[in-house]
Amino acid sequence: GEIFDKEIYQDNSVAGVVTGLAWTSVGGEILFIETALSRGKGKLTLSGQLGDVMKESAMTALSYLKSKAEKLGIDYRVFDQYDLHIHVPAGAVPKDGPSAGITMLTAMASLFTQRKVKNKIAMTGEITLRGKVMPVGGIKEKILAARRAGLKEIILCQKNKRDIDEIDEQYIKGITFHFVDKVEDVLEIALMKAKVDDPMKFTFTSESNSN
Amino acid sequence: GEIFDKEIYQDNSVAGVVTGLAWTSVGGEILFIETALSRGKGKLTLSGQLGDVMKESAMTALSYLKSKAEKLGIDYRVFDQYDLHIHVPAGAVPKDGPSAGITMLTAMASLFTQRKVKNKIAMTGEITLRGKVMPVGGIKEKILAARRAGLKEIILCQKNKRDIDEIDEQYIKGITFHFVDKVEDVLEIALMKAKVDDPMKFTFTSESNSN
Amino acid sequence: GEIFDKEIYQDNSVAGVVTGLAWTSVGGEILFIETALSRGKGKLTLSGQLGDVMKESAMTALSYLKSKAEKLGIDYRVFDQYDLHIHVPAGAVPKDGPSAGITMLTAMASLFTQRKVKNKIAMTGEITLRGKVMPVGGIKEKILAARRAGLKEIILCQKNKRDIDEIDEQYIKGITFHFVDKVEDVLEIALMKAKVDDPMKFTFTSESNSN
Amino acid sequence: GEIFDKEIYQDNSVAGVVTGLAWTSVGGEILFIETALSRGKGKLTLSGQLGDVMKESAMTALSYLKSKAEKLGIDYRVFDQYDLHIHVPAGAVPKDGPSAGITMLTAMASLFTQRKVKNKIAMTGEITLRGKVMPVGGIKEKILAARRAGLKEIILCQKNKRDIDEIDEQYIKGITFHFVDKVEDVLEIALMKAKVDDPMKFTFTSESNSN
Amino acid sequence: GEIFDKEIYQDNSVAGVVTGLAWTSVGGEILFIETALSRGKGKLTLSGQLGDVMKESAMTALSYLKSKAEKLGIDYRVFDQYDLHIHVPAGAVPKDGPSAGITMLTAMASLFTQRKVKNKIAMTGEITLRGKVMPVGGIKEKILAARRAGLKEIILCQKNKRDIDEIDEQYIKGITFHFVDKVEDVLEIALMKAKVDDPMKFTFTSESNSN
Amino acid sequence: GEIFDKEIYQDNSVAGVVTGLAWTSVGGEILFIETALSRGKGKLTLSGQLGDVMKESAMTALSYLKSKAEKLGIDYRVFDQYDLHIHVPAGAVPKDGPSAGITMLTAMASLFTQRKVKNKIAMTGEITLRGKVMPVGGIKEKILAARRAGLKEIILCQKNKRDIDEIDEQYIKGITFHFVDKVEDVLEIALMKAKVDDPMKFTFTSESNSN
Ligand SMILES: [Ca+2]
Ligand SMILES: [Ca+2]
Ligand SMILES: [Ca+2]
Ligand SMILES: [Ca+2]
Ligand SMILES: [Ca+2]
Ligand SMILES: [Ca+2]
Ligand SMILES: [Ca+2]
Ligand SMILES: [Ca+2]
Ligand SMILES: [Ca+2]
Ligand SMILES: [Ca+2]
Ligand SMILES: [Ca+2]
Ligand SMILES: [Ca+2]
Repeated sequence: GEIFDKEIYQDNSVAGVVTGLAWTSVGGEILFIETALSRGKGKLTLSGQLGDVMKESAMTALSYLKSKAEKLGIDYRVFDQYDLHIHVPAGAVPKDGPSAGITMLTAMASLFTQRKVKNKIAMTGEITLRGKVMPVGGIKEKILAARRAGLKEIILCQKNKRDIDEIDEQYIKGITFHFVDKVEDVLEIALMKAKVDDPMKFTFTSESNSN
Repeated sequence: GEIFDKEIYQDNSVAGVVTGLAWTSVGGEILFIETALSRGKGKLTLSGQLGDVMKESAMTALSYLKSKAEKLGIDYRVFDQYDLHIHVPAGAVPKDGPSAGITMLTAMASLFTQRKVKNKIAMTGEITLRGKVMPVGGIKEKILAARRAGLKEIILCQKNKRDIDEIDEQYIKGITFHFVDKVEDVLEIALMKAKVDDPMKFTFTSESNSN
Repeated sequence: GEIFDKEIYQDNSVAGVVTGLAWTSVGGEILFIETALSRGKGKLTLSGQLGDVMKESAMTALSYLKSKAEKLGIDYRVFDQYDLHIHVPAGAVPKDGPSAGITMLTAMASLFTQRKVKNKIAMTGEITLRGKVMPVGGIKEKILAARRAGLKEIILCQKNKRDIDEIDEQYIKGITFHFVDKVEDVLEIALMKAKVDDPMKFTFTSESNSN
Repeated sequence: GEIFDKEIYQDNSVAGVVTGLAWTSVGGEILFIETALSRGKGKLTLSGQLGDVMKESAMTALSYLKSKAEKLGIDYRVFDQYDLHIHVPAGAVPKDGPSAGITMLTAMASLFTQRKVKNKIAMTGEITLRGKVMPVGGIKEKILAARRAGLKEIILCQKNKRDIDEIDEQYIKGITFHFVDKVEDVLEIALMKAKVDDPMKFTFTSESNSN
Repeated sequence: GEIFDKEIYQDNSVAGVVTGLAWTSVGGEILFIETALSRGKGKLTLSGQLGDVMKESAMTALSYLKSKAEKLGIDYRVFDQYDLHIHVPAGAVPKDGPSAGITMLTAMASLFTQRKVKNKIAMTGEITLRGKVMPVGGIKEKILAARRAGLKEIILCQKNKRDIDEIDEQYIKGITFHFVDKVEDVLEIALMKAKVDDPMKFTFTSESNSN
Repeated sequence: GEIFDKEIYQDNSVAGVVTGLAWTSVGGEILFIETALSRGKGKLTLSGQLGDVMKESAMTALSYLKSKAEKLGIDYRVFDQYDLHIHVPAGAVPKDGPSAGITMLTAMASLFTQRKVKNKIAMTGEITLRGKVMPVGGIKEKILAARRAGLKEIILCQKNKRDIDEIDEQYIKGITFHFVDKVEDVLEIALMKAKVDDPMKFTFTSESNSN
């Protein structure tokens, strides 16, 4: 049941990595969404034994991001002239479901803007193509896993508030919860204004590939 | 059995989102067809665990729309120079069947024209490539779900009128039904003349990719 | 067993739609081959839950048509600069077999030439790549379905004449049969000289994509 | 067990059609290899419910032909600037095995050179990439089928001579057998010097696509 | 169990054909690797009902050859501007395993250089990407098959020497064995300096496709 | 259970080959990751009967390398203008799992920089997209296999130190262990500053393919 160990990521010094929360048959787990860009032609690579639903979740998050590129200050050519890879360690553990949607979106947004992700924050929630956040299951177990990992803030769908209300207070003491309906709110909370140190510098040919 | 929650979409301020009606083993449900465009090369992405029949339905609706582009005032280059994504939340619920045909067509037509979709309207019906509307099943359950969700107008195939006639009047009070044979009539009823606020502005290279 | 309803197509005002005859486990049925063109790069899309044999039938008919383009007065660039979609309603009913071959060929020929299809005519027969018409099964049931649908003329392979000879005369009164060996004869009988009203106007770039 | 009817092809006036011999569970059958070219980009389409072995046989025959293009007087650009379709009626009957190799090669050679195929000739034999002819099974049944169909000359691998020697003379009276080791000999025997009436005229862009 | 007959290839007058040794459930067999080039775009076609391992073996051999092109005097553009087909008769017999690796490599090297393959030589051995030769199984049975076919020289991996040492001398009298560790040694032994008569002449466009 | 024999690689004179450690049902084994480049268009080929997890591991390692190209002194155009092949002998033995991640990364880094790999070193560990090294299983058996093969240094994840601490000292005498958390440390330890003799010289067209 061990998907990942908490000690591996202890800082937010790189862009494009965000902590998510998973629900397995033996309890909650934290997981990490890792993203990376390399010069290319707009190819998307997904790895980490992701199931169909999780792959579609990644594609949906990417389409949302593309449709909001201008608002987020992303030069559109990056989608054409770079390849995007999304990996979810551990590489041999099958993973599926829509609940990493907002985590993947946040990781990509951080990567494309090179903005820092807030420290010790995690999130779980489905994303829709138009930017709604939908509730997911396994909240109690996920919260316990987040606490074990020392996380301090958690973003959830507004509709998952009732799940939090049912958890004994002792287990959530010291954790700040953010309940949201829209993806804009997720990014507002999780992404810092500051860029990471040594941010990646994108270089473009003047003409976009797709045009 | 819960595909989607009614509260999530309460307005029609964005283009490209239309309410449909689904029939599941535990009753009717409303569902949402979400569509989005991003600059690209004319790629079509479908997500939401759609089955073969539903995917073909989307392709058929898109071909119909392309064949009527001029009549609808759509610049043909948008099909070449943008990518289209159609998503049907919730992402983990398998969906299939042809009955979302006219809903998908309407969502795409709204997206490509940036015209508003009428408020509190839903629809269910198969589409053919030449623009006929064909009857579908599960009408009674779908109507009950639409009513629970507070919808006020419903578009159905003319041939589904007999299904409505068999429903006890108390369940359909306050709902206006539109019975249609042709896709033109669906768009006439469901799409408003006005564009959405802050409509998406399409930019094209002078020369279309495909020519 | 109901593939399609006879009332939906009552006229021949559009190009590219032809009536076929299908044989199901519960009897004969009429079906419709719908075709549409949109500007593109020569892609072929098939929908309507078609099986392998039926898909190959469509590809064979298209290759035949391409090889006879000049004779039929079709500008070859249409095959390169437009996408072709063939759809067979109803979208959820699986269909297979080679017997729609001549129907698909006729629909495509009408679409590419924009010539009218004769009114109240139907057909069933396999097509070969070099334009032979081959006999098919289920003739009696198909004829009965055609009659119920009010069709007046039927095209069959010469070799299917013996099947007609075995049908009681009362069931075929008022129907004109055409027995053919070659695809040229099918088109001669089924396509009218006149174009449809408001025929589609093809526009080409001077240079064909494929050359 | 009826794959095709003998009466359908009674002449050799078109290029690209050759008679083969098949072996089914209920006896021998004649079959026809049909080929057609249309302007394109060098795509190969195979239809007629062909199995893997038969598809590979077609690809092997095509590669052989390409490697001998110059010797056969074929302008190499035809492979780049035209699409080739190979169809084996009847479209719904699954077919497999390597024994149509020399038949497919001969049909293609006739098509690309527009030379007539000898009248009332049939053949069966596996082809290798370097142009060897290999023996195949079911010879007796195939010969009987050829005789029923009125064929007068048959090409076989030299190694299949022993199978002929075992057939009672009364069944092979009037049939001329050609036993060969090499594909060159097949073409020498089966292709006439004369072109078909109204041969297809190939038109090329000066520059080949692939170079 | 009969993969191929010894009599078919009795000379080494063509480039690109090499004799291998196969191990089947009923004993050893000789097989032939046939290769052919035709002008194209660098496509690789494999036929002869090859299994996954054998296909990967071919790809590995090709990558090795490409990485040594300069050393072998092969103009690199041939990999871009020609298509390569590898066929292993008989076409209907499934074949798999890595032991044809050095045979495929030698056939390709002969084809690309147009150098003659030594007469009456056969080989069996796995190839690695960096040019190591690895031992394979079934040596005794393969040697017996080679002897029945009249072959005079056999190339094996150094590590397969122990298998030869265990064969009764009477069965290997008159056969010369070459034990090797590296692919360079295979080519040194099997390829003659002389080109075949009428060697294929490669023509290139000045600019390589891939650059 | 024999994946590979120790004697085959006894030197580090070529770039792009690194020794890994595998865990099979019958004990530990050493394996070799072989990599090769040939001029092309950036295609990645994987062979050696690799399972999905191992393939994803290779893709993840390649994406990491691309994202660190500048830091490692790799001209980015090599990813566009050359094809990369990764092969893991023996070709017929199925292999899977993430534990070859750092081995594949190191082999690629050596290949692209043409730097020598340290002599008699092996490694095992999962890689993440952002360059973390994660622990893997079967450590004891792998160490025993490394010792049998005469290897002198082994790189492991810091978290696998506890597995080493549990091994009886007699089995690890003379082996130096390196425990790491980050991929940078793996490359620091395993790659020598010196290039191999006769390093491959990359040639580029001035303009990268992807830009
Ligand atoms: Ca854990
Ligand atoms: Ca699935
Ligand atoms: Ca609901
Ligand atoms: Ca299906
Ligand atoms: Ca009906
Ligand atoms: Ca099938
Ligand atoms: Ca027959
Ligand atoms: Ca097969
Ligand atoms: Ca034999
Ligand atoms: Ca396999
Ligand atoms: Ca070993
Ligand atoms: Ca798997």
